[in-house]
Amino acid sequence: MTREELVRTIRTKRSLLCVGLDTEESMLPEPFRSLHHPVRAFNHAIIEATHDLAVAYKLNLAFYEARGTEGWQDLESAVALINKVGGCFTIADAKRGDIGNTARKYAEAFFTNLAFDAITLSPYMGRDSITPFLGQRGKWAIVLGATSNEGAADFQFLNVGNANVPLYEQVIKNVSRWGTPNDLMFVVGGTRPDVLKAARAAAPHHFFLVPGIGAQGGDLNAVLDAAITPDGGLLINSSRGILQAGKGDDAVSKARQAALGLRLEMEAALRRRGVL
Amino acid sequence: MTREELVRTIRTKRSLLCVGLDTEESMLPEPFRSLHHPVRAFNHAIIEATHDLAVAYKLNLAFYEARGTEGWQDLESAVALINKVGGCFTIADAKRGDIGNTARKYAEAFFTNLAFDAITLSPYMGRDSITPFLGQRGKWAIVLGATSNEGAADFQFLNVGNANVPLYEQVIKNVSRWGTPNDLMFVVGGTRPDVLKAARAAAPHHFFLVPGIGAQGGDLNAVLDAAITPDGGLLINSSRGILQAGKGDDAVSKARQAALGLRLEMEAALRRRGVL
Repeated sequence: MTREELVRTIRTKRSLLCVGLDTEESMLPEPFRSLHHPVRAFNHAIIEATHDLAVAYKLNLAFYEARGTEGWQDLESAVALINKVGGCFTIADAKRGDIGNTARKYAEAFFTNLAFDAITLSPYMGRDSITPFLGQRGKWAIVLGATSNEGAADFQFLNVGNANVPLYEQVIKNVSRWGTPNDLMFVVGGTRPDVLKAARAAAPHHFFLVPGIGAQGGDLNAVLDAAITPDGGLLINSSRGILQAGKGDDAVSKARQAALGLRLEMEAALRRRGVL
Repeated sequence: MTREELVRTIRTKRSLLCVGLDTEESMLPEPFRSLHHPVRAFNHAIIEATHDLAVAYKLNLAFYEARGTEGWQDLESAVALINKVGGCFTIADAKRGDIGNTARKYAEAFFTNLAFDAITLSPYMGRDSITPFLGQRGKWAIVLGATSNEGAADFQFLNVGNANVPLYEQVIKNVSRWGTPNDLMFVVGGTRPDVLKAARAAAPHHFFLVPGIGAQGGDLNAVLDAAITPDGGLLINSSRGILQAGKGDDAVSKARQAALGLRLEMEAALRRRGVL
């Protein structure tokens, strides 16, 4: 999906919502547990129930790899359904990062074979671990800038170099020179508005993928205030808040309600800021 | 495999060799290409031919994930054979790094389900992305310190904080406090002996996994001079130098010869330094 298509989708759906399909077998609502492929069936139900509200879906690879071949098939099945339904941006939340020949293999795995639009990447190994994912029309690298977890402070917030800026800012500044706002985004956590503001100053035109809303404590309106752009510029992820909205027969309709609630808040914010 | 078992294996085999099974379908020797599961068959042949020379095997996940479910089955099959043959340390070269609940899923995928001894991790997300892999007897986190690729210079060599040390040194110093030499190693590339020396000063008792020998230009004896310890303290990886040693019917015997050549050099160095 190109940037123009993504922005058009945001405006049509009046949404910045990314649904995180971090689906855990042990957390599935009761009615799905006895099914033949429980994770697959639940993901399909969630996709069917939310695809008109969601701009994007993010699948965290760990949750699928933890279940081996069966998990990998669930992953393939979910992406295939999202692509069949159409009109949604797909993110492999893989946080990969490796040398050039290996990075090219990951690009093959996620862009070509699984047909994801985007993959998340760690910047630690530098330029040749990122560039193999750039320059392919409609495909995106989403590089970790500042994450929303406690451990982010250990290295991302250390001051670096002569300019004495935190590492995450230096990462955003340097990496943004390797790609363009058409093939490169950044992960910026939603728990610290000051960090979102600094990240936005470092990369005014790039989309940010924002985790950390909900379970991790980030406030949606504070995120929008800090980092929205004239074309939206944000994909705001919610995983547990949607997947675990209900426990019983109403789990899927509760998930839709949760997604709709977020979408309505996003729409109001987009209107206030003239994006819609 | 515990540290004592690893050190005993190094002394018994007189070797620090880690064979990197970065097996690419397009690079397979001719005789394997027509087989039903060519990558699986080649990996099995390499393992059979080198397991008395190798202390460890490292499987780079990208090369398996690029081929979807079939690749994942090849991965499972290779680890199962290595574990069946016995006496070798197994490394999932995954370079993962994610928040706590996700990290625990990866630990489940690689330690519990696939029965790897170790997984490589990126430090960018900090402590809670590393600790879920620590404290399990015989299981190891191998954290990226300084890598051997060109892009390493982009961030790993930036000076950080007041002490003005490069990021990779700060990473090694901080991370080494989170684990012990019994459950934590570092990746330190073999192309820069000065970096190996600085890394060794920062973590005198931890094992280093050293890529970059051979195809990437690192010199084996310079690596040994810079970072060997009284119990070895190194796993030195060779991938292409072994897997691509021959092209035809002699590919497997050429692979063994290449592995044997490295082992003999390692033995000589281990003797010179009194490890044997």
